[in-house]
Amino acid sequence: MREKWPAYIKYLQNRICLSLEEEDGSGKFISDQWVREGGGGGDTRILSGGKVFEKAGVNTSVVYGPVTEAMRQQLQMNGESWFAAGLSLVIHPVNPYVPTVHANWRYFELYDESQKIIDHWFGGGADLTPYYLFEEDAKHFHRTLRDAIRPFGDELYPLFKKNCDRYFSNTHRNGETRGIGGVFYDHVKPKDQDDTEHWFQFQQSNGNAFLPAYLPIVQRRKGLAFTNREVEWQEIRRGRYVEFNLIHDRGTIFGLKTQGRTESILMSLPPRARWIYDHKPDPGSEEEKLIKVCQCPIDWC
Amino acid sequence: MREKWPAYIKYLQNRICLSLEEEDGSGKFISDQWVREGGGGGDTRILSGGKVFEKAGVNTSVVYGPVTEAMRQQLQMNGESWFAAGLSLVIHPVNPYVPTVHANWRYFELYDESQKIIDHWFGGGADLTPYYLFEEDAKHFHRTLRDAIRPFGDELYPLFKKNCDRYFSNTHRNGETRGIGGVFYDHVKPKDQDDTEHWFQFQQSNGNAFLPAYLPIVQRRKGLAFTNREVEWQEIRRGRYVEFNLIHDRGTIFGLKTQGRTESILMSLPPRARWIYDHKPDPGSEEEKLIKVCQCPIDWC
Repeated sequence: MREKWPAYIKYLQNRICLSLEEEDGSGKFISDQWVREGGGGGDTRILSGGKVFEKAGVNTSVVYGPVTEAMRQQLQMNGESWFAAGLSLVIHPVNPYVPTVHANWRYFELYDESQKIIDHWFGGGADLTPYYLFEEDAKHFHRTLRDAIRPFGDELYPLFKKNCDRYFSNTHRNGETRGIGGVFYDHVKPKDQDDTEHWFQFQQSNGNAFLPAYLPIVQRRKGLAFTNREVEWQEIRRGRYVEFNLIHDRGTIFGLKTQGRTESILMSLPPRARWIYDHKPDPGSEEEKLIKVCQCPIDWC
Repeated sequence: MREKWPAYIKYLQNRICLSLEEEDGSGKFISDQWVREGGGGGDTRILSGGKVFEKAGVNTSVVYGPVTEAMRQQLQMNGESWFAAGLSLVIHPVNPYVPTVHANWRYFELYDESQKIIDHWFGGGADLTPYYLFEEDAKHFHRTLRDAIRPFGDELYPLFKKNCDRYFSNTHRNGETRGIGGVFYDHVKPKDQDDTEHWFQFQQSNGNAFLPAYLPIVQRRKGLAFTNREVEWQEIRRGRYVEFNLIHDRGTIFGLKTQGRTESILMSLPPRARWIYDHKPDPGSEEEKLIKVCQCPIDWC
C-alpha cells in the first residue's frame, strides 16, 4: 500500500488539475515541489486568478519519519516511525453562486522498531460550502458521494455524513456548520491484507467521485450574474471558513504547531475574507436561507 | 480595587471613543451592552466605516463567577471564584499608511470559599501593527510607552518590550512578529495594599499613554495618498493578523473555547483580509522593509 496509495493520489491529482483547468478555460496550475527535512515531500499545485476559480489548491504529500515527542504527546502515537500520504484540495471559485469545495483522502502507517506495521488506517472525505443554497446542488453532491460509497455498505454514508456535520462545526458560533457537509471518516483500520485492498477500493471510489460530484454544480452556476451584495456575503462566509480552519481544524493546527509546510497547509484559506461586527442576514433573504441549513443540517439524500 | 478598576476602564473607554470619533470626523461608535449568564457583562463599542477608521472596537467587560472545570484545567486556576475586568481595543484604519493598533489592560482576582482574595494580578500592553514602516512613528510609539512606564522602574520597559515581541509572534511563519511591538506584561502580582495602589497607578499611566502614543501617528499619515497596491499589501498583512489572533492568541482561544461572547472577542479581526499563495514582497521594496523588522525586532528607543 505504501507504493499503490501514492501512485493513486498522484494519478488523481493530475486528473483533477486537468479537469479544473479545462473547466476554467484560462487559469493554469503551477506546481511547487518541496522536500521535507525529516523525510519525503510533496507537490503543491496552485491555480490563482482564474476566470472560474479564484484560488484552487490540489496538493499531494508523501511523508515519513521517526515518531517525535510532539507526536507522542499531541497524537498519542506509540510506534517508532510512521508513513503518511494524502491528497488535499480546496477550491474557491470567483462567482458567489458557485460553492467552495474541500476534499482530502489519506493513508497512514505506524511501525515498530523492526519496521513492522503495527497500525494503519485510511481517512478522507469531501464537503461543500455554498454561499447560496440550491437544493438541487446539495442533493447532487450528497447523492454522488452516497452512490460512490454504497457498494461498500449501506450503513456507511449515513455514518460518514453525520461525522462530517459534527466535524465541520464552528462551535464558537453556536455550532453553525462550515457548509452543507458531505462525508468525513477517519481511522478506518483494515483487518488484514484483503481488507486493506477492500478499503483501498473504497478510497478510490470516493476519490473518483469528486469530479462528478462537483463539476456539474460549477457548470450550472458559473455563468449566473451577481453583484457586490453577493460578493460581500461570499467574503463574510469565507471569514467563517477561516475561523473553522484556524480555530478548529485538527490537521491545520497540528501541521502548524509541528513545523509543517505553512504555505501548503494554509493554501486552504480563501483569497479574500471579511468580518463585519455582529452581521446578521436580512430575515427571509437568500443569505438567511443558507444560514438556516448550517444551523440545522439536512438529510439531502 | 474591584470598584476602582472598573471605574477607571469605563472612564478610559469613554475618553478613547470620544477622541477617536473626533479624529475620524465622521464615524460614530455604537454601544452594545451585554449581560453574561454566569455573572457580569460588558460594553462593546464598535465604529465601522469611518473616514479614518475602517473598523474600531473599544470594549470593556466586568465579569465574575465560580471557577469551572474548564478553567481549572485550561488556566490552572485553583480558587473557588474569580473576578476579571478589562479594556480591550483594536483599531483598523482605512489608509494603509496608518498602522493598526491593539491595547488591553486587565485586572484579575481569585477567591477562596470564604470570598477572601487568594491571588490577584494586573496585566496589559499595547502594540502597533504598521503596514509600512516609518521609523519616526515606531520610535514615537515605543518612547511614549517607555516614558509612561519609567516612573515605576527603569528595568520595566525593556522587559515588557521583549515580552511583547515574544508573545506577538507567528511561530508558524518562522517567528515573524505581528507588527513592531510595544509592551506586554501579565501576572503582575501586588504584594500588599500599598503595592496594589502602586500598580493601579502603573496601569493608569499605561492606559493614559495610549492616545498620545497613537493619535499623532494617525494625524501624520491619514492624509497620505495610496493606491490599490498598498491596499492589497494591507490586506495580506491583515491576513497575518487573523492568523495570529486565531492560532496563537491565548485570550481569543480561551474565550472561544469557554463560551465567551464571540462577537466581542472577534471584533479584533480586520474588516478585510487576503491570502495569496507563497506571497513574498519585491526585494528592496517598502513592503520588504517592513517584513525585515518583523523578522528581527528592533530596539526603537
